[in-house]
Amino acid sequence: MAARTSSTRPTALRSAAQIPLRPFGPTQDAQDLRTPRIPLLDPSPVVAGGFTPKAFVGEVVPFSVVAFREGHDLIGVQLRLTAPNGEESLHRLRPRLDGTDRWGAEVALDLQGGWTFGFEAFSDDFATWAHATELKVAAGVDVPVMAALGADLLARAAAEKDRPAPQRKLLSATALELRTAEPDRILALSTDPAVAAVFRERPLTTLRSVTGPRPLLVERTAAGVGAWYEFFPRSEGARRLKDGTVKSGTFRTAARRLPGVAGMGFDVVYLVPIHPIGTSNRKGRNNTLTTEPGDPGSPYAIGSPDGGHDAIHPDLGTAADFRFFVRAARKEGLEVALDLALQASPDHPWVTEHPEWFTTLPDGTIAYAENPPKKYQDIYPLNFDNDPEGIYAEMLRIVQHWVHEGVKIFRVDNPHTKPLQFWEWLIATVNADDPDVIFLAEAFTRPAVMRALAAVGFQQSYSYFTWRNTKAELEEFLSGVAHDTSDYMRPNLFVNTHDILTEYLQFGGRAAYRIRACIAATAAPVYGVYAGYELVENVARPGSEENIDNEKYEYKVRDWEGAERTGDSLAPLLRRLNAIRREHPALRQLRNFATHWSDDDAVLVYSKHLDAVFTATGRPDTVIVVANVDPHSVRETTVHLDTSIWGVVPGEPFEVEDLLTGAVWTWTDHNYVRLDAFDEPVHILRVRERS
Amino acid sequence: MAARTSSTRPTALRSAAQIPLRPFGPTQDAQDLRTPRIPLLDPSPVVAGGFTPKAFVGEVVPFSVVAFREGHDLIGVQLRLTAPNGEESLHRLRPRLDGTDRWGAEVALDLQGGWTFGFEAFSDDFATWAHATELKVAAGVDVPVMAALGADLLARAAAEKDRPAPQRKLLSATALELRTAEPDRILALSTDPAVAAVFRERPLTTLRSVTGPRPLLVERTAAGVGAWYEFFPRSEGARRLKDGTVKSGTFRTAARRLPGVAGMGFDVVYLVPIHPIGTSNRKGRNNTLTTEPGDPGSPYAIGSPDGGHDAIHPDLGTAADFRFFVRAARKEGLEVALDLALQASPDHPWVTEHPEWFTTLPDGTIAYAENPPKKYQDIYPLNFDNDPEGIYAEMLRIVQHWVHEGVKIFRVDNPHTKPLQFWEWLIATVNADDPDVIFLAEAFTRPAVMRALAAVGFQQSYSYFTWRNTKAELEEFLSGVAHDTSDYMRPNLFVNTHDILTEYLQFGGRAAYRIRACIAATAAPVYGVYAGYELVENVARPGSEENIDNEKYEYKVRDWEGAERTGDSLAPLLRRLNAIRREHPALRQLRNFATHWSDDDAVLVYSKHLDAVFTATGRPDTVIVVANVDPHSVRETTVHLDTSIWGVVPGEPFEVEDLLTGAVWTWTDHNYVRLDAFDEPVHILRVRERS
Repeated sequence: MAARTSSTRPTALRSAAQIPLRPFGPTQDAQDLRTPRIPLLDPSPVVAGGFTPKAFVGEVVPFSVVAFREGHDLIGVQLRLTAPNGEESLHRLRPRLDGTDRWGAEVALDLQGGWTFGFEAFSDDFATWAHATELKVAAGVDVPVMAALGADLLARAAAEKDRPAPQRKLLSATALELRTAEPDRILALSTDPAVAAVFRERPLTTLRSVTGPRPLLVERTAAGVGAWYEFFPRSEGARRLKDGTVKSGTFRTAARRLPGVAGMGFDVVYLVPIHPIGTSNRKGRNNTLTTEPGDPGSPYAIGSPDGGHDAIHPDLGTAADFRFFVRAARKEGLEVALDLALQASPDHPWVTEHPEWFTTLPDGTIAYAENPPKKYQDIYPLNFDNDPEGIYAEMLRIVQHWVHEGVKIFRVDNPHTKPLQFWEWLIATVNADDPDVIFLAEAFTRPAVMRALAAVGFQQSYSYFTWRNTKAELEEFLSGVAHDTSDYMRPNLFVNTHDILTEYLQFGGRAAYRIRACIAATAAPVYGVYAGYELVENVARPGSEENIDNEKYEYKVRDWEGAERTGDSLAPLLRRLNAIRREHPALRQLRNFATHWSDDDAVLVYSKHLDAVFTATGRPDTVIVVANVDPHSVRETTVHLDTSIWGVVPGEPFEVEDLLTGAVWTWTDHNYVRLDAFDEPVHILRVRERS
Repeated sequence: MAARTSSTRPTALRSAAQIPLRPFGPTQDAQDLRTPRIPLLDPSPVVAGGFTPKAFVGEVVPFSVVAFREGHDLIGVQLRLTAPNGEESLHRLRPRLDGTDRWGAEVALDLQGGWTFGFEAFSDDFATWAHATELKVAAGVDVPVMAALGADLLARAAAEKDRPAPQRKLLSATALELRTAEPDRILALSTDPAVAAVFRERPLTTLRSVTGPRPLLVERTAAGVGAWYEFFPRSEGARRLKDGTVKSGTFRTAARRLPGVAGMGFDVVYLVPIHPIGTSNRKGRNNTLTTEPGDPGSPYAIGSPDGGHDAIHPDLGTAADFRFFVRAARKEGLEVALDLALQASPDHPWVTEHPEWFTTLPDGTIAYAENPPKKYQDIYPLNFDNDPEGIYAEMLRIVQHWVHEGVKIFRVDNPHTKPLQFWEWLIATVNADDPDVIFLAEAFTRPAVMRALAAVGFQQSYSYFTWRNTKAELEEFLSGVAHDTSDYMRPNLFVNTHDILTEYLQFGGRAAYRIRACIAATAAPVYGVYAGYELVENVARPGSEENIDNEKYEYKVRDWEGAERTGDSLAPLLRRLNAIRREHPALRQLRNFATHWSDDDAVLVYSKHLDAVFTATGRPDTVIVVANVDPHSVRETTVHLDTSIWGVVPGEPFEVEDLLTGAVWTWTDHNYVRLDAFDEPVHILRVRERS
């Protein structure tokens, strides 16, 4: 497989295809024509609408372009990259040879910031000559002419002043020899590996044509990689009192949960809104319109006399307590993500200070959030068109306030209910100051809207993953996010949320929880879990797709350690999955997802592979996942693998090790599997390197 | 269905969606953001790479754009068109309501030249209010508030100074009434058809957002519509002499064939190259390397001491004879297309006058065309990189010479063996002088190359049609050309050529010829036939995909009238097919192709429909084709139609008339068919209008 290239390689990237840098030089592109001399079409990565494609530090990005020329002469294609530090590099593309005329190269971009990329095609005169000479000498046709053409060509290359001296010497000598050589020797010279190596490193190029440069934004790794854990801080350390009410947890008590979360191997702890909660029309338990004493209200009804989006709920503590929590998280290797829910309870300070930010009705009241004729009387939505400048400035202030408090990740609630234009502006403005800030779009809506939110700047997106449960659905969904939209959209595969408890989880028992966690953790580099998943909290409010006694409206007092002691917790599985993710860089990529065949319509098979050049160990990394997605059954079937992806010739045996059980098997491209949903529903296999 | 709109409609287009013109007015687009206030994404028609999309005069073009806004408020979307004469028009788009957020409108563009189009979205305040009011009044919620909001909204619309006075009066009166109305009356007013009509014609718009304008090139109708007939003029009127040799036909004798071609209903007569043919290394019959006396040579080996690409083969006659032929064709309603084969025989005047236009080898000889190690010693290819300016100028001179002689259509031989850049330049340069000139690309090569040739300017393209013979192949191919590439690529469905006799035709007998002609003539608006098709000349040179005794290397003496007298000719079928094409405007469109289901894997079903607004008669036109594509069988099956395409409710009966046999049946959306390949392999049905 691919090998690391020479030590002259810039530190900002990894690529198996890098070649010595050369200037573009004069090109033959007519200024008034769209088509360069050698057409370069449909360059990728690309985002429709002219938005900038995205990658994350360490992501292996497939660059490609359609290139061809008239007739039979051969061409070469190169990728020219400019890193944010101005460093240029050149990478040779390989033809895909699948009839599409597409050429590609993979490069891992290791420096955050704005990159540019362009493609360059050229007539590969040496390759054309060598190919024709091989055919013609074998056929005894034009032998002296081909020798003379070759001699001229090599002499021309030898005359290139900026070509290294040893190359020039070899080419001159070969040119001289070609002028007098016999056919056998001509054939040998036209296929001489030393000469071929010279031109592979530095081709003789004519008709040079260019396209680009185009921008590519590389964001920090956490934009594309991470295991998220969501909790309600008020529940962590909450205590049930003797009178049956619950005393709220605080940032101090919630901080005690952080070692547990970190111990499971999570990277990000996401908190639902931490701000004061309104009391007007506060919702009671299970979303009822009446409250009982002690009902804490939905944290999404933001704002009270205690403050708004820049304030902290008094029950949770003070600003100092929050800072303590953030520091405690950091000590555990966890990053804190906050919820950004841009809406107000009727008690929010905005309502009196900036009534113009809402919609005032003819009767003088402020319009509630609604889906006519339904109304949500605990929420006033903002009206961004009344005072855009004022609202934009306030939203920016709020985000910057929390950035200042050490928060660099925001989970944005319902971004599709605010103007798309606002998000483009807000994210660009925040990132101009601090490119480390990450926004996750919580938009469960139509595909065009979700894609547009990602295109205008959201670093991550909730996805349809929760509702893709059959093998066919998962194959289509996972291939789509890995290959169709990965230039701009990064799905965060949450297995559940405080608002989503799918029928699959409601009725699939413990097996369903295990299967979904295994897939989410391995199919994409970002996934998430909402607290309680490990306890298999799978009872829904009847007729709904959310938990009964939704934590949004009440405290949850859970016994994490107790559940783990009795063996009822899935925490050990999550811990193992996150450990596997850390050990296997192939799982920290999105675009390397590949489906494989199985004969059973419930047995999903996919692999993730990374070439050696892209791993820290310098060894290739391959993980194969085989999952029985029917949580009620035992399945026996044959899986059929395209082993060429990890460099194994079809039919050749190789060893796999199950990373969940430690079992080791010798596999080929066709393998029997038995997956018992009640016992061992998923294999997560690493391919062992041959010794 | 759609109706023609008012008489204020510009003469340059037809559309059912046209609305009175209004200026764009101020928009709320932030200058530095990509996203307007209401997002307008993925506009269509569009061509990747920034090339200009194309249509032809009379083509019904589907314009569409993805548009949505945050929240529940409703939007409207409009298309603004500017004709080549500067005339502007505005057309309302309809949401597709298929979950894609795509809005569309169809417009027939009736003026040749450069158009522009742009999209405009706005908050449809009236529709939002009317929708919410209907729901809320029914639920008894917010009734006085909704009435007040409606009164304000109608008063605002009534105050628009450029709104017609009767509209303003109605709106003022309604506003006044709303302020005091009872709930029942409010409900009635919110759904009042008169008020709705006012806003349908002229919505109350806020948050106006625009994208575009973008260019769209409308070419003359013949660029996209026509029935082509290919012949070798030297064969038409050729006579076999007593010594067994053949005396060449001339333009005068070939002109006698024109009434026959026109009588079959063809629009274009395409001639293989008419220039002097070289004698050096002339190919003999069946592509042999030796000639017999009297062998005329391949007309593609262009050039002799008699002249080159601007000269006429002496056997065919003089320049005056050629002009006579062009005039005779015109008199028959036929347009002449010439072959543009940019290559030279070794005897071409270029070889001595411009040796720099070829590749000279180290031994001083000029390089033959080759596919190493094969060589084509009767042909020298041009080397466009040696003297681009000189070659470009000469090629332009040649084209303009024939344009001056009355030829406006060129079938370009192997354009993929010349630089793509050259074609972009040549076509743009020729069309700048004369936009009526049409170039047909004869490129049988990889998809990316064929698509690129179309994108850079070729008005028509040969296609893979000849090799798409099964039902599945045809469904995929025909849907693809109608929907995926139709913004820039127009396939000319030749059923055969002098170089292509597919296995389907070789072994499918007479039925195969009938089936392919029926499909070619009805599935796309441009198709072609090479002379001899009507005689079912289906014997191939063994092992090849071309006719034995290929006409490229010899004369063909055929008896057209005799074959027709004995009933052996397919001319009557071609005549009928071309008549059907003339009678049915739906068949003169590409993009309206729709496949339907049949239960038999050899019975292909498709329809072509045109709304009444787009036909000259003002009546809708619908043609359904049901073809048994297995030429060796009788098939009985059920076809299942999506009758909603032509406005028939599923299950409702309608009458169809077979345009080939005159049979009339009452059909529904499910119909029994029996197609006997040996007798009646295809139904071409028109849907009769209900009286």
